[in-house]
Amino acid sequence: MIFHKKHHQSGARPGTLHIHEGWPPPKILVFRYTLENVEEWETDGSDTFESLFDQPGQVWVDVQGLGDEALLRRMADLFNLHPLAVEDVVSVPQRPKTEPYKDFIFLVTRMIAVLDGAAIENEQISIFLGKHFVLTFQERPGDCFEPVRQRLRNPDSRIRSSGPDYLAYALLDAVVDGYYPVIERLGDQLAELEEESLERPSKNTLRATNKVRMTLLLMRRVLWPQREAINSLIRDENSLVTENVRLFLRDTHDHCTQVAEVVESYRELVSAVANTYLTVVSNRTNEVMKVLTIMASIFIPLTFMAGVYGMNFEYMPELHFRYSYPLLWVAMLAVGLSMVYYFRRKGWLGGE
Amino acid sequence: MIFHKKHHQSGARPGTLHIHEGWPPPKILVFRYTLENVEEWETDGSDTFESLFDQPGQVWVDVQGLGDEALLRRMADLFNLHPLAVEDVVSVPQRPKTEPYKDFIFLVTRMIAVLDGAAIENEQISIFLGKHFVLTFQERPGDCFEPVRQRLRNPDSRIRSSGPDYLAYALLDAVVDGYYPVIERLGDQLAELEEESLERPSKNTLRATNKVRMTLLLMRRVLWPQREAINSLIRDENSLVTENVRLFLRDTHDHCTQVAEVVESYRELVSAVANTYLTVVSNRTNEVMKVLTIMASIFIPLTFMAGVYGMNFEYMPELHFRYSYPLLWVAMLAVGLSMVYYFRRKGWLGGE
Amino acid sequence: MIFHKKHHQSGARPGTLHIHEGWPPPKILVFRYTLENVEEWETDGSDTFESLFDQPGQVWVDVQGLGDEALLRRMADLFNLHPLAVEDVVSVPQRPKTEPYKDFIFLVTRMIAVLDGAAIENEQISIFLGKHFVLTFQERPGDCFEPVRQRLRNPDSRIRSSGPDYLAYALLDAVVDGYYPVIERLGDQLAELEEESLERPSKNTLRATNKVRMTLLLMRRVLWPQREAINSLIRDENSLVTENVRLFLRDTHDHCTQVAEVVESYRELVSAVANTYLTVVSNRTNEVMKVLTIMASIFIPLTFMAGVYGMNFEYMPELHFRYSYPLLWVAMLAVGLSMVYYFRRKGWLGGE
Amino acid sequence: MIFHKKHHQSGARPGTLHIHEGWPPPKILVFRYTLENVEEWETDGSDTFESLFDQPGQVWVDVQGLGDEALLRRMADLFNLHPLAVEDVVSVPQRPKTEPYKDFIFLVTRMIAVLDGAAIENEQISIFLGKHFVLTFQERPGDCFEPVRQRLRNPDSRIRSSGPDYLAYALLDAVVDGYYPVIERLGDQLAELEEESLERPSKNTLRATNKVRMTLLLMRRVLWPQREAINSLIRDENSLVTENVRLFLRDTHDHCTQVAEVVESYRELVSAVANTYLTVVSNRTNEVMKVLTIMASIFIPLTFMAGVYGMNFEYMPELHFRYSYPLLWVAMLAVGLSMVYYFRRKGWLGGE
Amino acid sequence: MIFHKKHHQSGARPGTLHIHEGWPPPKILVFRYTLENVEEWETDGSDTFESLFDQPGQVWVDVQGLGDEALLRRMADLFNLHPLAVEDVVSVPQRPKTEPYKDFIFLVTRMIAVLDGAAIENEQISIFLGKHFVLTFQERPGDCFEPVRQRLRNPDSRIRSSGPDYLAYALLDAVVDGYYPVIERLGDQLAELEEESLERPSKNTLRATNKVRMTLLLMRRVLWPQREAINSLIRDENSLVTENVRLFLRDTHDHCTQVAEVVESYRELVSAVANTYLTVVSNRTNEVMKVLTIMASIFIPLTFMAGVYGMNFEYMPELHFRYSYPLLWVAMLAVGLSMVYYFRRKGWLGGE
Repeated sequence: MIFHKKHHQSGARPGTLHIHEGWPPPKILVFRYTLENVEEWETDGSDTFESLFDQPGQVWVDVQGLGDEALLRRMADLFNLHPLAVEDVVSVPQRPKTEPYKDFIFLVTRMIAVLDGAAIENEQISIFLGKHFVLTFQERPGDCFEPVRQRLRNPDSRIRSSGPDYLAYALLDAVVDGYYPVIERLGDQLAELEEESLERPSKNTLRATNKVRMTLLLMRRVLWPQREAINSLIRDENSLVTENVRLFLRDTHDHCTQVAEVVESYRELVSAVANTYLTVVSNRTNEVMKVLTIMASIFIPLTFMAGVYGMNFEYMPELHFRYSYPLLWVAMLAVGLSMVYYFRRKGWLGGE
Repeated sequence: MIFHKKHHQSGARPGTLHIHEGWPPPKILVFRYTLENVEEWETDGSDTFESLFDQPGQVWVDVQGLGDEALLRRMADLFNLHPLAVEDVVSVPQRPKTEPYKDFIFLVTRMIAVLDGAAIENEQISIFLGKHFVLTFQERPGDCFEPVRQRLRNPDSRIRSSGPDYLAYALLDAVVDGYYPVIERLGDQLAELEEESLERPSKNTLRATNKVRMTLLLMRRVLWPQREAINSLIRDENSLVTENVRLFLRDTHDHCTQVAEVVESYRELVSAVANTYLTVVSNRTNEVMKVLTIMASIFIPLTFMAGVYGMNFEYMPELHFRYSYPLLWVAMLAVGLSMVYYFRRKGWLGGE
Repeated sequence: MIFHKKHHQSGARPGTLHIHEGWPPPKILVFRYTLENVEEWETDGSDTFESLFDQPGQVWVDVQGLGDEALLRRMADLFNLHPLAVEDVVSVPQRPKTEPYKDFIFLVTRMIAVLDGAAIENEQISIFLGKHFVLTFQERPGDCFEPVRQRLRNPDSRIRSSGPDYLAYALLDAVVDGYYPVIERLGDQLAELEEESLERPSKNTLRATNKVRMTLLLMRRVLWPQREAINSLIRDENSLVTENVRLFLRDTHDHCTQVAEVVESYRELVSAVANTYLTVVSNRTNEVMKVLTIMASIFIPLTFMAGVYGMNFEYMPELHFRYSYPLLWVAMLAVGLSMVYYFRRKGWLGGE
Repeated sequence: MIFHKKHHQSGARPGTLHIHEGWPPPKILVFRYTLENVEEWETDGSDTFESLFDQPGQVWVDVQGLGDEALLRRMADLFNLHPLAVEDVVSVPQRPKTEPYKDFIFLVTRMIAVLDGAAIENEQISIFLGKHFVLTFQERPGDCFEPVRQRLRNPDSRIRSSGPDYLAYALLDAVVDGYYPVIERLGDQLAELEEESLERPSKNTLRATNKVRMTLLLMRRVLWPQREAINSLIRDENSLVTENVRLFLRDTHDHCTQVAEVVESYRELVSAVANTYLTVVSNRTNEVMKVLTIMASIFIPLTFMAGVYGMNFEYMPELHFRYSYPLLWVAMLAVGLSMVYYFRRKGWLGGE
Repeated sequence: MIFHKKHHQSGARPGTLHIHEGWPPPKILVFRYTLENVEEWETDGSDTFESLFDQPGQVWVDVQGLGDEALLRRMADLFNLHPLAVEDVVSVPQRPKTEPYKDFIFLVTRMIAVLDGAAIENEQISIFLGKHFVLTFQERPGDCFEPVRQRLRNPDSRIRSSGPDYLAYALLDAVVDGYYPVIERLGDQLAELEEESLERPSKNTLRATNKVRMTLLLMRRVLWPQREAINSLIRDENSLVTENVRLFLRDTHDHCTQVAEVVESYRELVSAVANTYLTVVSNRTNEVMKVLTIMASIFIPLTFMAGVYGMNFEYMPELHFRYSYPLLWVAMLAVGLSMVYYFRRKGWLGGE
């Protein structure tokens, strides 16, 4: 299903946080880093975050799991987040977007990634970019940010020497980079499905083709607003994003466009595969029909001839003629062979 | 039918109110509220509305049913509405739009909602947003505004502390939120239809697919102008809509876009389902043909062989040879098995 | 045919008026009206029009039929029309457009209407809007302006109290209103064709579907430029169109957009109907094949079995065994019933 | 083929003139005209053109055939043409375009015309519009400019009294007017192909449909840039094109748009024809199958019944019963008629 | 596969150069030229490039093969290239683009060419245009720049007398010119595939059609950004590109547009070919069915008739009537001929 999440209740008061049952409790990863050193700890949100800004440095708080309303409200108070933005964090799925607020920029992005070679993971990631912090909310633990964390631990990394805007860029870039393996997998599947359509079409081919189509439609619905969102980060005036980071974002924008264009191409290929399937099936019916027609056209007249001389009329002169039987064989052979000749000339015999 | 309402008579004088027979008589719900208290009463329009503005507070008059021309004219006089706008209230269906007038903003929106889990309800809702009032006209009783009314009764609700622009936003938002269950239902139907196409295609599948397509086309025709209308509320200068409410409308605009994008995806899926259906039917014909061809190709030659020895020629040496009969059985088995072998090698036997 | 009118000769001198043979001679209806009174007369163009402006008031001259070049030239002189505009009046079909000239606005519009429930009438109407006159040219008598004429005769009508721009608006509005019954009829036809495709597909269904498609394409080609033309009337600065009339034109523009959007939806439905037809036909072939396959698969093996014991071999022990015949019937029943069981399990029996 | 001309060699020096073998030698028509008189002569380019500007008047040099590089270079020198423009004259096919140079405007246009009722002629025409001259280059002799030449010989013609910009307009207009018969012919072919698809589909129908599609794609590729080119003539500031001529060009622009829109409609119709063809073929298969199924379903069971009593068992009581034979006929008739009844109820008998 | 290159690792540090195993070691061609003389040498990158700017003149360094990271870094230092740009050189495939930096313009373009009549070569070419140098990076040796090198060796060539911007233009132009043979080949293939679909459809036809479709999709994805990139070279202010070269680039832009438009047409033709294939296959099935139906419909009733008189009833009066046998032949002939007549009237006999 394309649209598999429950929407929030119609007409509900804006600002309400609807926590769905079954959402995992949050796991929180905190990084506090300066150019010189980096601290990193994990918590389940039960401790206070008051000590967070005790020491200088930039902070990245990564909340994985949206299952705890109280925690979300504490975070909102601590980082002074606007209620509408916090509501968007939990009202998944949102369209990717960039929304400037007074003290922070609110980014909604969507991770579509292949984690550990398994199924495609599709999850909303909300990013708050403030003056000294980056705050991220994920629907579930498990993401494609590991390389960013590695770089953060490395003192020579540019992340350490840049502001939180660069970290936000690095996260966005990781999300967009995560689209590539998905698109590659879809491409592989399409190539396979084309082969399958040509060689061994089955209902599962159709099913798989429709599934690829749906994933492509999902990606498309994500990619265009994602691209727009990155573009507005680059274009809009905002003191939180430095000129230098905008240059890097241009690259991410390019990648996003590239993936979106590949998705468009793939959509066309999916239709081609579906059409190929139909054509191959029609072709097979044709093959089957040829066999039937050849067999029937050869043997039905012969059976008729045999039937004639199986009749019990008293007065059938041929029955008593000595060479009737071999002559009939000759006639039957002639009829049979002429049918074969006819079909061979039509090109129905011998060959695909 | 997509276009099932009777249009107004060609060339008729603008300003005429064409009340169609069979339109229900209006049921009117009035809310008068201040931050401190809220009054709420229902009427059939026979009382005078003069007392409406006797007391301070904001007023929401919700007219459900357009069957009473006199009432409409009295409302128009009372609220000082422009004749063109009033005409649009009854000339349904109108495209969703935002029209600024001197003293009020006129909004046409369209409710497409699933009320009480029943069929999809499709009805025009016209909203007049004035300085101290919100006036709504519905084609029929029954709407998706109940949550808004609940919030209105709650003294802590933001509606109570805000102007009529916030109420109008809340109504618009409820209308847009009402699209989600519809789209969800369509998505479920599509998933079902895909399964049905694959497993048990029937004419009803086709019929249902075409019906989903029509509903999607209807939604599409509503959603894009709806989105435009909300956008013009956000963008256009107008003292009736405060800056704060524009922020909230941005959210509604996002939701509208999101639904519209899902509708586009679904339109593509509907075509895919229709194509799947055709392919599955072709596939089935192929299956049927294979059975026929296998049966016919095996038994027609055998019947011919039996026919040969059913002939009554006087001079047929084989008839008198002692082992003819068992030998013929051997030959027939050989022919039959070689056909079976041929079809198995072709992959027509044993398998989907 | 979509493009059924003869175009003017390639490279011909602009300004030439090509009157086609067979064009009807003009019938002219003149209205001269002030707020107080209205005069109305009909002529075949043989009288002089010099007296037209003798009395004060606004004038609507409606020329129905383009078959008289001399008359057209006299009108051009009388109303001081630009040669290029006059040429466009007779070089039908033109795209709908708005062209401002120094003393008048030239509007080309296209009436597509159902007159008296008959076939769809498709005709160009050229409107010249001057300071004190409206001049209309129709290809043939018969139009959808009757309601406008009725309103003109009514002294309370807004037409009587407004300038010629309001009359021009009323005519344009009548033309656009005339599209609604056409689109409704097409919608009815589409619903019927869908039903026909599903229940009793025939070549006539295909033919009718293609005809609806062509009408939709024609409407599309008319509606988008029509909409643009109305828009330029609303937007462009021009002292001939008052602010008030622009407000009314906004409504006409909305209607035009609405019809255009319905046409787009219908184009998609036409394709769906054509596809449904193909699918239903494939489905039927499938049904036919099943009957054949069931009959053949049951009786061909039985015929073979009967054939075997029709052979005349001297040494066939079964022939002399007392219970052979009833045993063979048992065997044949077993074979027949097992085939029936097989087909029932496949779901080919007792089907749709 | 859509793309049938050899392109110039990859990476070749700009400014090189690649004259293809087989290009016809030029035939040159010269007009020198003032309001009072007109001179007209033909040459093969061997004489000098120095005398061309000896006498006052405007000059139209029409070079038909690009086979002579030396001549092209002499013309370029004489009229002071830019090398890039001259290169475009011979590097056919170019997209239609308008390129302003210092002393002249360079127009590339494409004639697609039906000359003398024969095949569609597709040829690039390059027009140089200077202060006192119009210079045209055609790929081959044979064009649609004859009416323009006629008007040029007529002293009352507006061409004689206007500048070279009006002549250029007249040529452009003749080119665009030349599209109409092509589009009309395509429309006729489409109507014919639709009829053929419905009544007597053959491979040639498919072939012809594809050919019409290609011609439409070619026209489309020409028409949109052509329209753009005319538009830039109208809009761009340029002293060579007077205000009056721009008014006339607006008309040509309209015609171009009209043809382009018809082409778009026709593209959709071509797809509809192709789809109709497929549907009709499927329909026919269905018809064929019905005949087979009816014949086989009636006679196969009967043949089986006859086969049963052709068996030679010693103990078959029915064989000796006196009324067996007529009773069997009754049974066979009953079986046959019940099959006929079954098929009639299914609607497979008695007509399409 | 459309997307056959491995993307860089998700979340990797920007500025990293990922050299893939199997990338060829670079081969470097250097040109140093002034108006008077030209030097040209080849190296594998082991020598120092310090001497490059010892002598006056412009330099073109063409690096063919990206397999040596150290060399790339040395080049970056030597020419002072931005790390992001260098990263784009190796992160293939990039979208074609123009990126202005402070001291140079960075162009990414894509060569799709037919080299030596072999398969289609698809490779990214990155161009750095500086004040005195052009630096190009190719993925592999083998390109379409030979004509440019020839012109460079020619002292009269405009390349020698112009700046590096003209050289960059010449390279870009060579790349775009290289698209023409590809598009021509695709056009030839399409024509062939259409013929094949009509005359001898096989699975390979489908396969080849899909392959052409993929190549077209690839070209499309390259051409539109390529066009945009050239356009931004023409439009954007930049002192590195002179006014004169912009004039030439306008031509390249035109060519790019032309190819892109042909690609769009071809995409439509590919779909038409696929549809033709399906139709032809359906047509063939129809043909096969006709043969079967004719044979079966003629002989099955005859066989039945023969079967009747093969029965062994004791009391069958016809068996003993003298003329039964010849009369039966007459009856069988009558039945057979009436079937033939029926099929001939239906048009199933004699001819396609």
